[in-house]
Order: sequence, then C-alpha cells, then structure tokens
Amino acid sequence: MGQTVFIPRELDANEPRVAASPDTVKRLAGLGFDVIVETGAGTRSRIPDEEFAKAGAAIGKAADVAKADVVLKVRRPDETELKSYKSGAAVIAIMDPYGNDAVVAALAKAGVTAFSMEFMPRITRAQSMDVLSSQANLAGYQAVIDGASEYDRALPMMMTAAGTVPAAKVFIMGVGVAGLQAIATARRLGAVVTATDVRPAAKEQVASLGAKFLAVEDEEFKAAETAGGYAKEMSKEYQAKQAALTAEHIAKQDIVITTALIPGRPAPKLVSAAMVASMKPGSVLVDLAVERGGNVEGARPGQVVTTANGVKIVGHLNVPGRVAASASLLYAKNLFAFLETLVDKATKTLAINRDDDLVKATMLTDGGKVVHPAFAKADQQP
Amino acid sequence: MGQTVFIPRELDANEPRVAASPDTVKRLAGLGFDVIVETGAGTRSRIPDEEFAKAGAAIGKAADVAKADVVLKVRRPDETELKSYKSGAAVIAIMDPYGNDAVVAALAKAGVTAFSMEFMPRITRAQSMDVLSSQANLAGYQAVIDGASEYDRALPMMMTAAGTVPAAKVFIMGVGVAGLQAIATARRLGAVVTATDVRPAAKEQVASLGAKFLAVEDEEFKAAETAGGYAKEMSKEYQAKQAALTAEHIAKQDIVITTALIPGRPAPKLVSAAMVASMKPGSVLVDLAVERGGNVEGARPGQVVTTANGVKIVGHLNVPGRVAASASLLYAKNLFAFLETLVDKATKTLAINRDDDLVKATMLTDGGKVVHPAFAKADQQP
Repeated sequence: MGQTVFIPRELDANEPRVAASPDTVKRLAGLGFDVIVETGAGTRSRIPDEEFAKAGAAIGKAADVAKADVVLKVRRPDETELKSYKSGAAVIAIMDPYGNDAVVAALAKAGVTAFSMEFMPRITRAQSMDVLSSQANLAGYQAVIDGASEYDRALPMMMTAAGTVPAAKVFIMGVGVAGLQAIATARRLGAVVTATDVRPAAKEQVASLGAKFLAVEDEEFKAAETAGGYAKEMSKEYQAKQAALTAEHIAKQDIVITTALIPGRPAPKLVSAAMVASMKPGSVLVDLAVERGGNVEGARPGQVVTTANGVKIVGHLNVPGRVAASASLLYAKNLFAFLETLVDKATKTLAINRDDDLVKATMLTDGGKVVHPAFAKADQQP
Repeated sequence: MGQTVFIPRELDANEPRVAASPDTVKRLAGLGFDVIVETGAGTRSRIPDEEFAKAGAAIGKAADVAKADVVLKVRRPDETELKSYKSGAAVIAIMDPYGNDAVVAALAKAGVTAFSMEFMPRITRAQSMDVLSSQANLAGYQAVIDGASEYDRALPMMMTAAGTVPAAKVFIMGVGVAGLQAIATARRLGAVVTATDVRPAAKEQVASLGAKFLAVEDEEFKAAETAGGYAKEMSKEYQAKQAALTAEHIAKQDIVITTALIPGRPAPKLVSAAMVASMKPGSVLVDLAVERGGNVEGARPGQVVTTANGVKIVGHLNVPGRVAASASLLYAKNLFAFLETLVDKATKTLAINRDDDLVKATMLTDGGKVVHPAFAKADQQP
C-alpha cells in the first residue's frame, strides 16, 4: 500500500478550478500513489467523477483528507479545513501568503509542510511547474474575450459594401505572460494593438507579436533597452514624460487591458480616474489586477462598472477560472511536475530534499514552523 | 426650405441601433434635406445628440415626425407611432412584414410610402443598400465572441511549458454572410473550423477561409457543386447520408454556430435535442436564428439555456444590436445609399420612380394601398 494523494473540492464559491486532471491522476498512480479525489471536485472544470475514477482515482469525501500524505489544492486550505489534515502532510497550492500572516501561522500549527506554488523560481528546470505563467497566459487570452464581449463594436477592420468598420485600438499595459497573450489574442482578432511596460527590453517582445511599443524613445530609453531584463529604474524626468505620453494615448483607445502585478504588494495604479474620464463613451477597460487593488482607478472586484462618461471598467474575479477547463488541466500538470521532484522513484514514497532550490523557494511551513525567510516572523503570531 | 428627414429614437427596449450617423446626417444635408434627430436616438449606439447636431441635424422630439417627408428607422413604426406620421411620408426601415398583415395594412391606412429594406435585390447596384448583409456580417462576428465568452476553454491551441491546450473545434452551419464572417472570426481566434451548407457550391468559399466543408462528397454532390449557386434540391438519399454525417460531427464539436434563415418562413431545425444531448458537457451552441423559431431545438429567445448534460445554448436577441455602434454606422449608410436614389438632384426633393427595380422590390405600401405583390392581400385586413 502506497502513500495517499488527496484532491479536495475547492470550497471558495469563486474557484471553479481543480488541482488534478485525469491525466495527472494516471501519472500519480504511476508514481506509486493511491489517489483519492473528492466527489464533485472537477465538476466546475468539466471533469466528472467518472473520468477521475477511470483514470485510477478513488472517489471520496472531504473527510478523506485525514488519510492524505499529499494534498493538492488550488487555494490554500482555511483553518477549518486544516483541522482534518494529517500532521506532516505535504500541501501544495497557491498559498497567497503575503499579508496573511495568521493563515501562514495556522499552516505551521497544523504541522503541514506547505508549498507555495507561486514562489517557484523562474528557472528552466521549473518552467513546467510555473503556475503563475500557466494561469496568466489564460487570463491574458480571456481578458481580450471579455473586453470584446463588453465592447459595442467589432474588433477587426471590416470592409463592406456599406463602408468600412475601422479596427479597434487595443492598448495592453504590462507585458508579462498575461500581457503577451493579450497582445497575441487582440492581434488575432484584428485589432490595432499597442503595449507598454516599465522594462524597455519588452519592446522587442511586443514588436515580435506585431504590436507597437509605446515609449518615449529618448537616449535614456535606448540605453536601458540594450541593457535588457529588469533594468534600473528610469529617471524621474523620464517617468514624467512617459506618463504624459501614456495619458494622451489612453484617451484615444477603445479597449485598455492592464496586467501589472508586483509580488507581495498592492497592484500599481496605472490608469487614473482622469484618464478614464478622457476616454470615449463605449470604451472598455479590463483590469486583471483588480484582486490586488486594481491598476485602474474605479475598478471594483467582481463587477463591470460603467462610469459617468460611459466607459466600462471590467473587474472580473479569478479570470483564469473563467476558462476553468483549460486552466485546471495546466495547473494540474504544474503541480504534478513539482510533486514528481519530491518523490523517491526507488521507494515510491515522498522524500522531500530540503536543500533543493525548488523546495527552498516554495516551502512555507515545515515541522510545525514557518520556514520561508520572507514569513519567518509569522511564526510569532498566535 | 427643403424637405425634412426625421430619425426617431427606437422604442423597442431591445433595439439599441439608430438609422442615422453623423456621417449620413451630413450627407442628407448635402442632398438638400433638413434633418431632425430625436433627442437620445443615438445614445445606445454611442452617438450623443451633440455629434448629430455638429453634423448639421436639429435635435427634436418624437412629435416632430409630423413634419417629416422621410422617416428613417430601424424597426417598423407601430400603430401608435404611425398616428403622428404625415400622410405621404416615405418611411424606410426593416419592416419585417411576413406574418404581420395587420401591421402592413396599418402602414397603408396611415398613407405612408413604406419601404422594406430587407427586400433590397441582391444586385451589384444595390450592394451598398443591403441591410441584411451589413447586419449579418456583424452578427456572424459577434456570434463567435459570444460563443468564446460562454466557452470554458481557450479557442486557440496554446503550447505552454505545462503542456498543450488543444484548439477548440468550431462548426458553422449555414454559410451565408453571417456564416462566412463567423468562420473568419473563429479562424482568427485559432479554432479548428468546419462548416456546412445546403449549397454544395459553398464548399469553395469555406475552403477559401481556411475552413473545412463538411459534406458527403459523392457523385451527386460533385455534380451539384459544379452547377454552382442555389442548386436544385438534393435527393432524399443524399439528405439522409448528409444528416447522419452532420449528427456524428456535432457530437465532437466544442462550439456550434447556426445561421440558417429562410425569408418569410420559420428557421429550419438543424440541431435536434438528440444532437444537443450527444455533445460534451461545456460545449456551446449559438443560435443566430432564435428570433425566427431557432435552428437548435431547445434554444430560447433572449436566454442562455444550460441543458441537463451541461451544454449551453445561447439565444441572444438582436445580435447585430450587441455591436450597436458598428451596426448603426453601416445600417445608416445602407439607408442613405437607398434614399439618395429616391431624390431628384436638380430640385433637391423626393422623386420616387415607381418603375425603378429597387423601388418595386422594396415598396410595401403607397397612396393608401398595399402595393407589394407578396402582401397585396394584406389590404383586405381591417
């Protein structure tokens, strides 16, 4: 009898994703695990119990978590859930620990070894475990679909006998994984796409997708561009010039999609109320950072706000969850790829190497203590 | 003082379009007309009163229709509205007269010269007046956006470090203007697209957009294909083989968009309840014919229905109205292009040539009588 992996149904009403797929269940069994999936865990990602069963999982109930040596989740377990967890169990999820010291302390107190998938280092070896990328990619796609859905014109240029419908102007702010996929999707739909980022080096990526990079391209910019990567912060003068250019640009856009997040900190405000007010009625802003306070002034989590001047600000929660069926498949693979590194292939049991870089980067709590350096002080909480 | 064109606000709550744009107002003034736009007429198509005023229109109220020699509308006026119309006024709209004999009689009784834009012949000269094409084109685009919005996966294939998200399979039934634009839009979004039509000649158009035509390609099909255009009806045997192939195909699709309309008759049923039941949970059907009874069994006008097996049937009303800002611009141009043919450029007044083919095809009522041959009997109504 092997060790047990348990995949619970997510309790958050706003979380349709699930941390396993029939494919990963099969692979987990291949690693020697007994797999239990809570009944209904996959329903909202369109994976019925039968498919998990066919792949080799037992279908169980929430209380079966007590048998689990490994728990795979989307969101971190809350304190009530943790009461049923076995001390020493490995719990792998998006732990979202920043600003949640009490929760981190609770994980330690429960004695679980908690891994925060969003801390996975962005190195080649861990690419297949990068949940931020896999989910941001889908969020970037869905942001364009959501924007197009709210927008009251067509995105592509249409040449018809009655005249030409001009292509929509779409502006992407923040060119990470989500921003790049948003650029690609808006381009696919035939929009005229521009994008911007605080990293001048992003210009090349934007251009490679057929979009135009918006920046004050002075000497300072050019120097920073060739420096590449996360360049040093630009001068105050440059920032002011860039802000003026951006403000002027936003007033002319039909759809603006913002994607700027800073790990562990509130989202930067990119679009002020004055900029929103400068836009034409019927224009649409999609704020992918709304859960972190928002990039757009006036965005409301979970709402589509229409401003006094007729601009829509779309603030959907959990945007990857809006394409849950795709999001769960990729998320499940990310988790499997990581868990595989924690298993001793010979004995077919969990063998966590606490010196491994991936473990060190992601391990939040272990043996009753908060072990992650960024949260060690959380230990002192009650 | 010239003759007066009046553009009312549409009264139907479900009709956000408007029959003029700032561009056409300017052109109407150029033809010598005084133009009055009812206040708020363009609001829901994102054209504020000020823009109409800037283009040269007076902003008026509903009662100003009494001064109008020409009324431009989206939907036909109801009996209450007609009471304020001047006898002899030309009224140009989508009259939707089939099955509405009483309304046609009311138009005659009001003494207006009513033109039914949807009867415009599909000849080169009238291409710029073809409201069915201009609106169907946008409906085809929006059907894909609506489908993608309801679908819980991404449409394009995505190759990521965590694995590949397969491209969605989209099937378009009915390859008219709407169907062709739906094919183009789904292809833009990276879906794997197939399409079918009762006209074998449509195969070539479908292929030219990079999609695959679904048909039993036997000898009979090949003969019909080369005959081109609206071929003679296929044999009963052929129809049965084709129906079986289609049923089998639908079971494997992610998104099905149906666009089949027959002028003056209920929409043909293309997708049976059994076919809907054969689809995977999470699949989406978009029925563009729902206002005519629907191509899909179980479609409900104005609703998104989720079936027992988890398939969504999208039945939005007035799909061109969902991209109202684009739809109104094109519709307004269609109407202007037609009205221009009714004007004597020398005297700058209306001079309807009742022998013109376009007039003969579209004129529904004139001089107190129902004059269109298809509706002449409507005259006998009270």
